[in-house]
Amino acid sequence: MKNVILASTSSLFGEAYLEYLKSEVEILFQGISELIFVPYARPGGISHDEYTHKVAVFFEPIGIKVKGLHRFEDPAHALKNAEAIFTGGGNTFLLVKQLHEQRLMNVLKEVVENGVPYLGTSAGSNIGGLNMQNTNDMPIVYPPTFNTLGLIPFNLNAHYLDPDPNSKHNGETRETRIKEFHVFNKVPVLGLREGSWIRVKGDKITTEGMLPSRIFLPELPPYEIQPRTVCAFETRQNPL
Amino acid sequence: MKNVILASTSSLFGEAYLEYLKSEVEILFQGISELIFVPYARPGGISHDEYTHKVAVFFEPIGIKVKGLHRFEDPAHALKNAEAIFTGGGNTFLLVKQLHEQRLMNVLKEVVENGVPYLGTSAGSNIGGLNMQNTNDMPIVYPPTFNTLGLIPFNLNAHYLDPDPNSKHNGETRETRIKEFHVFNKVPVLGLREGSWIRVKGDKITTEGMLPSRIFLPELPPYEIQPRTVCAFETRQNPL
Repeated sequence: MKNVILASTSSLFGEAYLEYLKSEVEILFQGISELIFVPYARPGGISHDEYTHKVAVFFEPIGIKVKGLHRFEDPAHALKNAEAIFTGGGNTFLLVKQLHEQRLMNVLKEVVENGVPYLGTSAGSNIGGLNMQNTNDMPIVYPPTFNTLGLIPFNLNAHYLDPDPNSKHNGETRETRIKEFHVFNKVPVLGLREGSWIRVKGDKITTEGMLPSRIFLPELPPYEIQPRTVCAFETRQNPL
Repeated sequence: MKNVILASTSSLFGEAYLEYLKSEVEILFQGISELIFVPYARPGGISHDEYTHKVAVFFEPIGIKVKGLHRFEDPAHALKNAEAIFTGGGNTFLLVKQLHEQRLMNVLKEVVENGVPYLGTSAGSNIGGLNMQNTNDMPIVYPPTFNTLGLIPFNLNAHYLDPDPNSKHNGETRETRIKEFHVFNKVPVLGLREGSWIRVKGDKITTEGMLPSRIFLPELPPYEIQPRTVCAFETRQNPL
């Protein structure tokens, strides 16, 4: 049974790392003594070791030991034997490139679908969708494909931002960008605001947290859903 | 002799399309009676015909006829015989995919390097760099490569935005994203604010317009250059 949290962000403004998610993470990882951390997204170019250390500091008081996936000689074997897995945020292009080039994307998918508890934040949540095509990240590396885990039958836009009515900037709003996506793709997109997350338990997918989420379906006006809503959007065949 | 304008944006807040650039465009396209417009970036999913019409309306009072590249049976031939070329903004992934799949990227490069006047705005400026890896756009389609025209020996970040000191959002700033790029790439990046543009005349490259530009070099703190500064950044070999 899938047991997954996909969170918009690791931290809220002015709060410590993962603080707002702590009680949820304790429930997700109940009974776990060790988790595998996937540090490949490297926010701000931080090293794999530094990033893993930051995560270990958070989990130490909860009694969970953290091992970085980059430290294993056989990372596929490590994932297959993991008690729990956490993929941190950073650059989604970099994360997806690494997972595909090391042939770990399908391994990770299989393990999580078989019930190993999974936490993703930001880039680590984006890869929970069907593909990474709604990331906000800069294409700093070229991944061999944009396909991702498909733990949910739609895509996420993490760190979703509403248009600023006072902005004098001419760059596209998030909503415009997602609308452009839907000219070429039929995949539903959920705009996940900071402070909200997706909870997957088996086949049941709900939104959780403090804020409503924004739903984008092709050829339809976007709309809001409140926290604790079941996500059951129809995924139509991608025409491309 | 190269004769190029790469502008951060097509429009400024509250102004008509291309209004702030009009006198510069008249100089760039002096003596031209017809230009080829490349509409492939399709902002907001607008059709190729609609986009071309919008551009034709701007150029009509200047006495320049506009033809959309999508209307030619042999677009490579059309580019090779163009008096002048303008590539509009929109989604850079879409623009780059189309140009590569139609085998037009190298044709466009050759034509512009041979002296055909070229105007780019936003996505149409991003492709003037060595690659599109500093775009802000969403990866709505998968291009066969991120390489672009290389009309200048560095990359552009169009619509460059300074960090908002009052922001409570946790998404990466533009500066952080470019810093992440430089963990894996040695290509210099010029952050081009709205209202500014790059002017190329032969081998001379200058920044122009109202605002300073922000220069990002690997392993160095970013710095500002004023309008009318010659751009002569050293491009080191990309290690990847």
